[in-house]
Amino acid sequence: MPAGLFDDATLFRPDLPPAAAKWSGYPKYNLVGGHNDADSVPVEELIAAAATALRRDGKTLAMYGLHSGPLGYKPLREYIARKLAKDAGITCTADEVLITSGSLQGLDLVNHVFVQPGDTVIVEQATYGGTITRLQRVGARIVGVPLDHDGLSSAALEATLADLKRQGIRPKFIYTIPTVQNPTATVMSTARRNEILALSAQYGVPIFEDECYSDLVWSGTRPPAMRGMPGGDRVVHIGSFSKSVAPALRIGYLVADWPVMSRILAIKSDGGSGALEQMALAEYCEQHFDTHIASLRKVLQRKLDVLVAALREQFGEAAMFDYPEGGIFLWITLPEAVDTTRLQQLALAAGVSVNPGAEWMTDAAPGRSRIRICFAHPSEQTLREGVGLLAEVCHREFGIPVRDANAHR
Amino acid sequence: MPAGLFDDATLFRPDLPPAAAKWSGYPKYNLVGGHNDADSVPVEELIAAAATALRRDGKTLAMYGLHSGPLGYKPLREYIARKLAKDAGITCTADEVLITSGSLQGLDLVNHVFVQPGDTVIVEQATYGGTITRLQRVGARIVGVPLDHDGLSSAALEATLADLKRQGIRPKFIYTIPTVQNPTATVMSTARRNEILALSAQYGVPIFEDECYSDLVWSGTRPPAMRGMPGGDRVVHIGSFSKSVAPALRIGYLVADWPVMSRILAIKSDGGSGALEQMALAEYCEQHFDTHIASLRKVLQRKLDVLVAALREQFGEAAMFDYPEGGIFLWITLPEAVDTTRLQQLALAAGVSVNPGAEWMTDAAPGRSRIRICFAHPSEQTLREGVGLLAEVCHREFGIPVRDANAHR
Repeated sequence: MPAGLFDDATLFRPDLPPAAAKWSGYPKYNLVGGHNDADSVPVEELIAAAATALRRDGKTLAMYGLHSGPLGYKPLREYIARKLAKDAGITCTADEVLITSGSLQGLDLVNHVFVQPGDTVIVEQATYGGTITRLQRVGARIVGVPLDHDGLSSAALEATLADLKRQGIRPKFIYTIPTVQNPTATVMSTARRNEILALSAQYGVPIFEDECYSDLVWSGTRPPAMRGMPGGDRVVHIGSFSKSVAPALRIGYLVADWPVMSRILAIKSDGGSGALEQMALAEYCEQHFDTHIASLRKVLQRKLDVLVAALREQFGEAAMFDYPEGGIFLWITLPEAVDTTRLQQLALAAGVSVNPGAEWMTDAAPGRSRIRICFAHPSEQTLREGVGLLAEVCHREFGIPVRDANAHR
Repeated sequence: MPAGLFDDATLFRPDLPPAAAKWSGYPKYNLVGGHNDADSVPVEELIAAAATALRRDGKTLAMYGLHSGPLGYKPLREYIARKLAKDAGITCTADEVLITSGSLQGLDLVNHVFVQPGDTVIVEQATYGGTITRLQRVGARIVGVPLDHDGLSSAALEATLADLKRQGIRPKFIYTIPTVQNPTATVMSTARRNEILALSAQYGVPIFEDECYSDLVWSGTRPPAMRGMPGGDRVVHIGSFSKSVAPALRIGYLVADWPVMSRILAIKSDGGSGALEQMALAEYCEQHFDTHIASLRKVLQRKLDVLVAALREQFGEAAMFDYPEGGIFLWITLPEAVDTTRLQQLALAAGVSVNPGAEWMTDAAPGRSRIRICFAHPSEQTLREGVGLLAEVCHREFGIPVRDANAHR
């Protein structure tokens, strides 16, 4: 084939990330990604909800914004405002809620109104890989703060804020996933939230709270969101239906004071999020969300228990982890001998996909022997077989788990 | 209320556009925006289509990308590939089609892979206002090329390309709306398309072809898209269902060679477009698109004729325009005495919203006495009354139309 015009790389921006490879499907044991349990998708209820909402408001599809303005479909915003009051202690009106295309769009919008190249942002030392790459793309200087069993460490945060202040640096925000932290799956206590809020006040640094997993706490009760606590006016809050109903719907939301919201609306030029999802969710959630999420939590915890049992059986004490308080992932520490970036490559060749710790940490080094395994989408059999294969590959390359020393299991 | 943290403007990026004002609903006579005819939204058919698609593929909602990969729901991509072959002369497979959240996301993605601040981009001198603001936001130097009754002028384009070349400037692309140009509503002939393609080859400058209105040609036949013509490998093609089915669905598409597509996929981190729209459209369009669009074209042309009659009655010969070959808007030239930016403000105060020409042109000056009126969403009565009010305001401020000289009408 002769060279085409677009083979001339100088036509493109010079600062693009590497071009994508062609998609060739998922590996057989796909233990990554925010996918959810397929059998829990409430298909018939969504069909009924879409039909009801479309019969009522379908003609408004003829308008950008569904005659609800730039914030999104009003009945959905009203539901979210009620839900946040009930579940998260947030008092807000529908007009303080912005519908976003997943919480991912929330991340992009917040990054774009606050961060310009060179600005400093504080995140948890282990955090969502997509947050790290997005912040890198906007040119942020990312400062990671350690976590403990209660989530973001307030002592470490205070030290970091003080240190930055000495350098004359005021970070743009503190990004945290308080409830079912990604990847550690801790749930930050109310006391810790108060400490973080106090530091935000003391140093004049906003909090960016990503509560996209907060519906998935096994106990069924989440602590109040920081947005709903005293000092919550300094908090930008995002949430999502991706983890609670279905990721492909691409519906999330953002709650923030008007100085933030009005700037976000000024740069949000996408014409709104998908109308059918907004309509179907508004109708569905009103009737079914609470029973659905209670059932989904049980399904997810059962899968987690299958994963934990498989890890115990295959890796014995070589796989160390805290039992998650909720969510869809497990954060595992392997012995120091295991380089999980290498393990990931070898496992992928064997059909098993896992996240190496380096991709989920602000500093790659402490993530060297960690992996993240997502358990919501794979079947129980896939989890068992996938962990078995992973152990096999890991043993072959690193001698871990030790196969001939059953006493160590 | 005491000042909050976010009242400190230094927290935000300094280069943001002005913050949004609170939305207070549409004016009574809303003659702007890409809204469509509400009674033409095929509500019952969309309900049935969503139900069928969800019963078949609903469980894939549990995965980002619906198990179709990063390009979008495969049945929809397959439909689009067939539609483009039939209607636009484009030969492509489903794997060369990317589903976007409206053609607006297509604009953003293409801008972001090609343009960095200071780069030059060629557009039509009168063009979509959103394209102008988006290009401004990425820091492009925008060069406008005049249009004639056949769309983008190839003679003027050649002169511009030659002039830029003499300056050592290679534009990143030539952005054009060939079919039902926005705002002039011309349809570029096949001969003219060939001329533009030849200039693209000669100067090594890609063509960015926005065919979002191409289903709305009154005759029912659109010329082949440049993407489907010889040399079409130098063309990035975008289209949309916003103007043909419903804008609130937020579904568009992009067709481009892999060097472009692979770079776009690398920066596209939104987790995909809304699943219910993709599913419902794939199912709906297969069965109903062709009959629906034929009927919608009739409805729209009838509304156009109501608008034209109202203008004739109210403005007489003071309102000059070419009768559109399709679409949802009319581009009107008023006498030089009329400053349409001022007219817009006064009309809005009277409850009538129109686009002043200055917002739809690369150079504000030649747009000074022009307005764009969108006719797809308003009822026939709203069109008549809105034009009446507009004429009243215009007469009061500019003495045009001349009220006491009926001979001049």
